Order: sequence, then C-alpha cells, then structure tokens
Amino acid sequence: MSVTVRPRILSGVQPSGKLHLGNYFGAIKQHIERQDSGECLYFIADYHSLTSLREAEEKEAGLAAKNKSIVARPARQILADNVRDVALDYLALGLDPAKASFFRQSDVPEVCELAWIFSTVSGMGLLERAHSYKDKVARGLTASVGLFTYPILMAADILIYRSHLVPVGKDQEQHLEMTRDIAGSFNHAFGEVFPLPDGVYNEAAIVPGTDGQKMSKSYGNTIEIFAEGKALKSAVMSVVTDSTPVEEPKNPEKCNAFALYKLFATAAEQAEMADLYRNPMKGADLRGGRPFGYGDAKTQLLAKIDTYFAAARERRKQLARDPGFVEEVLVAGAKRARALAQITLQTVRKAVGIHANPV
Amino acid sequence: MSVTVRPRILSGVQPSGKLHLGNYFGAIKQHIERQDSGECLYFIADYHSLTSLREAEEKEAGLAAKNKSIVARPARQILADNVRDVALDYLALGLDPAKASFFRQSDVPEVCELAWIFSTVSGMGLLERAHSYKDKVARGLTASVGLFTYPILMAADILIYRSHLVPVGKDQEQHLEMTRDIAGSFNHAFGEVFPLPDGVYNEAAIVPGTDGQKMSKSYGNTIEIFAEGKALKSAVMSVVTDSTPVEEPKNPEKCNAFALYKLFATAAEQAEMADLYRNPMKGADLRGGRPFGYGDAKTQLLAKIDTYFAAARERRKQLARDPGFVEEVLVAGAKRARALAQITLQTVRKAVGIHANPV
Repeated sequence: MSVTVRPRILSGVQPSGKLHLGNYFGAIKQHIERQDSGECLYFIADYHSLTSLREAEEKEAGLAAKNKSIVARPARQILADNVRDVALDYLALGLDPAKASFFRQSDVPEVCELAWIFSTVSGMGLLERAHSYKDKVARGLTASVGLFTYPILMAADILIYRSHLVPVGKDQEQHLEMTRDIAGSFNHAFGEVFPLPDGVYNEAAIVPGTDGQKMSKSYGNTIEIFAEGKALKSAVMSVVTDSTPVEEPKNPEKCNAFALYKLFATAAEQAEMADLYRNPMKGADLRGGRPFGYGDAKTQLLAKIDTYFAAARERRKQLARDPGFVEEVLVAGAKRARALAQITLQTVRKAVGIHANPV
Repeated sequence: MSVTVRPRILSGVQPSGKLHLGNYFGAIKQHIERQDSGECLYFIADYHSLTSLREAEEKEAGLAAKNKSIVARPARQILADNVRDVALDYLALGLDPAKASFFRQSDVPEVCELAWIFSTVSGMGLLERAHSYKDKVARGLTASVGLFTYPILMAADILIYRSHLVPVGKDQEQHLEMTRDIAGSFNHAFGEVFPLPDGVYNEAAIVPGTDGQKMSKSYGNTIEIFAEGKALKSAVMSVVTDSTPVEEPKNPEKCNAFALYKLFATAAEQAEMADLYRNPMKGADLRGGRPFGYGDAKTQLLAKIDTYFAAARERRKQLARDPGFVEEVLVAGAKRARALAQITLQTVRKAVGIHANPV
C-alpha cells in the first residue's frame, strides 16, 4: 500500500506596491495554479519589506516635492497600503482561501525567533557569498543588517512550516540553497529536525517590459495588472518597437509587443499575428487598405490584456468594498500557519535545550 | 510637586557554567545591591548563549575523550544545566524575586521579533565596528551570524523593556552605545518610541585570577563561588605569588593573594595583613616562630572566602532540592517581563505599519 502525501508548498509575496504583468506571469499565475496540487501556504512578506520601506518612503517624498498632487505617506501607511493591495490582488486573481492558507508574515512572529536560532548555526561566509545582497548594495540600497540577514529569515519562513516545495524564480536559487545549508547545519548541531526543501523553478519566459528589458518596477517599464482605461492604453502604447517602415515585413520574434501578446494568445492567434508581421499587406482591405503595423499589434495586445483581467478587475473592486472579508481570510490563514509554526518551534526549542514553550 | 520615578534597571546574565569570584565582584554583587534602588529586570541570556553552545559541547567532548570519568553532555543538556545553575546561583546569592523580576530570555520571544525590526534600521557598519565580535573571532570562535548580530539582540533586550539603566562592565560600553544608536535610528525612521538608556559602568576593580591575569573562565584561572572543601582549598592555594624568600618583606600591592583578600576583608583587616607582608616576623610567636609568608596569606584568604559564601552555599543546596520553587520564580518573572515587552512591541508594530498584535 502506498500513501500519497500532498506536498506542502510555500511561497512569499513581497508587498511592494502595484503588481504588474511580470509579477503575474513570473509568479502569481503559478501560485494560483498550484492550489490544487498540494497544501499551499502563501504569505505576504511584510517583515521582509521593512528592509526597503524607508527607500519607498523617501522616493514618495521626493515625488511629492516635485508634484503637488502627490501626498507623501509615512512609511507605516505605505506598508499597510501595500499589504492590503497585494491581498486584494491575489484574492481577485483567483487565490482561493479554501484551498491555500494566505496570511501576513507578521502574524507568525515565531519566524523571527527561529531566525535568531538559525543565525547561531550559520556562518558569516554563507551570507557574505549571497549575490542578492551584493547586487542590492551595488544598486544603492543602504546596506542594513536586515538586508544582509534576509536569507536567514527566508530560511526560517520556509523551514518553520517544514515545507517540501518552494516555487521561486531562478534569481532565488541561491537563497534556497542557503535554506538547505541552514537546515543541514541545524540538523547536524541539534539532531534531525528539518526536511530539506526543494526549489521549484519557474520556467516561464522572462516578461519583457515596455522598453524590452525585464519588466521590473525598478526599471519603470511595467504594465500593471489592474490598470484600465487610459492608463492601461498608454502603458501598452508605450511599448518600444523598432523603426521598420509599416509596409515592410517585420520579425515577430524580435518584437516586445509580440512577446507580450504571446502570453495571452492561443497558438492559433499567435500564428495569425506572426503571419501579419511577416506579410503586413495581408487582409489590408479589412484595415481600409492600411498595412499591419506595430500599432495594430499593440491594439490587439491591449484588447487581450483588458479581456484577460476583466473579471479579476471586477472582483478586486468588490473585494475592496469588503475589507472585513479580506481580513477574515488573512486571520484564518494565519491561524492555520501559526499552529504549524508553533509545533515546529516547540521541537526546535527542545532540541537546543530551552523550554518547549515560553511561559 | 515632583514625582520620583524608580528607574527601570536591566541586566542579562550569561548561563555559561560555574560562576567565579570575577563574576561575583564584577556583576552579581552589584545586581543584588541594586534590587532596592529601582525596578530590576534580570534575565538569563539563553538565546545569546546559543552563540557559544557548540564550542562548549565540543570542549566537553574533548575532555571526555581524555578522561573516562567525564560523560560528555549534548548541547541541549549543557544549556539546560547552565540555565538551572545560574538561576540557583543568583537566588542563593541573594536575588530576591519579590524585588527583582528574574527570568529566562527565551520566555520573552518578542525580543527576537524586535531584533529583526531593529536589523532593518541598523547599518552594517555599526556591527562591523564592534570590538567584541572582532575579539571573539580573533580568539577562534566560529564567526557565526549570531555572534555578529548579537549587539542587535542585546539592543532588543534592553529596549523592549524601555530600560533606563543598564549596569554592565566597561567591556560592554560599545554595545551600549550601539543600543543607543539603534534606538535613535528607529525613532528617526518611525517616530519617538524608545528612550535612550544609560549604561552604569561598574567601578569595581578587575578581579585577578589565580595566575594574576583577569579572572576568566577562558583563562582557566578561576576560583568558583560555590567551590568548597578540597576544591576550594586547591584553587586558593594555586594563586601564583613571587619568589621573595619567606622571611623578607613583601609588597602586598603586587600580590594576587592580597588583591583577592581585599575583596573580602575590612579596611582594618587589610591594614593588618599589609603590615605582616612588610614585617613578616611580626607576631611570629603566634605562628611557632615562623615568618608570615604567602601561604599564611592564602590560608586567611581561604577562610574569608569560605565564610563569606557559607550561607549562600547552604541556600543553594536547599534551592537545588526544590526545583519547583526555582521554576515558579522564573515563570513569575517572565510573566511580568513579557507583559512589558508585549506593550512595547504593540507600539513598535503600529509604528512600522503592521498590526499591533499577531492574530
């Protein structure tokens, strides 16, 4: 007789403002699709976001100084708004709280305690080798201790739930290796407590931004998931294309607009548009004799995006009117997660020689 | 009308094995004397001691490999024993749980959460400048992340109780400055939450060890507070003195045995012994004609130590037979301390933009 155990799947979501297509196709879509394949725990990483919160506050203050219509919010308001926004986004996009536990990281403060304990079995060299820390410092983020020790809190987040699978981007591969190293060090020092989790690396193509670089908030090249009307249109129309004359054949594989279109279109639709790129006069009579140009591709892309997220956009508006429901979801998720975390921490405390529970 | 506020006094005690005269005159005595001058919170730093626990385990395993009568304990047992021992020591030496809150650090896990939050407002440079970290690494301790971030947990320990005064050794002066820096950084980022605590530096003379260096476990030159009988005698007799012939005048101010004697003797007793150092034949008839030598000084020192700690030794034996009482003391202390910590953390969580309480 074989027993099938549903894997425990964990992922964290940074509450860093408006989500964009890069976030959606890079992570959110997979998170939502995985709801049926295991016991999912998805948390909003508010403790983590404290490492970049003051930069966000300063940036907003800078914008407000230049633009009188912007009212700069204090750090605490930015964090609270971002957490609420990402909760609304995920629920609107299909996260089902009956299937996945969805909660705020700060509702399970036990992760901070486990992070301290892990810090005592983690060598400095482990953190010093982290690419992500070096990159962030190189990009000008203040080298805070939290930025440096972030991989330890991440390890605690993963291991406190004894997670089996961690769906993350390729850029998180080293952090996941560090989590496995930390689990190994703890087990070696105090006995086998933690299973070593496996990373599940998302194979989705990198989503290009409007300028062709990877879509990222820090590059200012995003198309927001919940943009609509004029804002959505102006973002899509700003997609950079080359200067091939409109009547000449164009290469769809080198076009950002086409790359984005592929994310939304069926294979048949993709083939049809690729054909128009290569044969711009095809069906010109349907366009009043005009050849098929980049503007036409962007118009079709806009329609796709608009349709794809239409239902989610409506759900988000409904959810935003019902903050009590959102809070209930997060509280219920936190209670399930915290119960698991407390059991792990009891084991850890006993293993290191302190009382199973604080008094 | 003026209101006198009793200051809140905080100190941590490392549970690192048998306490010695250096610990007593360097810290414990002051801790106990301060019980009447403020609201004292004294905690057993078990989270901190995890940074050196594996070294202790390895050392014991090394001793056991050489000496069959020693049974090496696992790390968790060493920590549990050390915590129990230091609790017994303090209570036996006069810590009054009716006056001071005495508790285990790990019974207030909120300090770990506050430490994470502090790490996000603390620059790497602050920790990199810490002498204590550099010294420990130079002495061969593994450079763990916990050893590096220790000053942040220490800041959390102090600030979570909004302590006013922190009696510490001079060697902790930089750590206390770091605590003030961290409090200042937090207040600057999120609003005035923390008072800046003041260090109270103990002016007691450094207690010499049996070899004349500072008394310290790591130098193997200690005289244990609760040693008695043969063990105490052999420790005291091992005090190193110079080779001045017994009948010649000796300089008390350059003698370790006299330096230790001064800690226990009245001014009159000190003057009397100093006189015998300088005039060794004085009162020789009372010694069967022998001049006063270092051996005589050590015998008097031994008697002083024996008498000074006699009552505490008895109390410790009684307390050791009543572990339920010790546990009650620590639980009651933790409850008082944790209630204060939770109030501070609610304020902190609101200030940074997360819910006042985890759900």
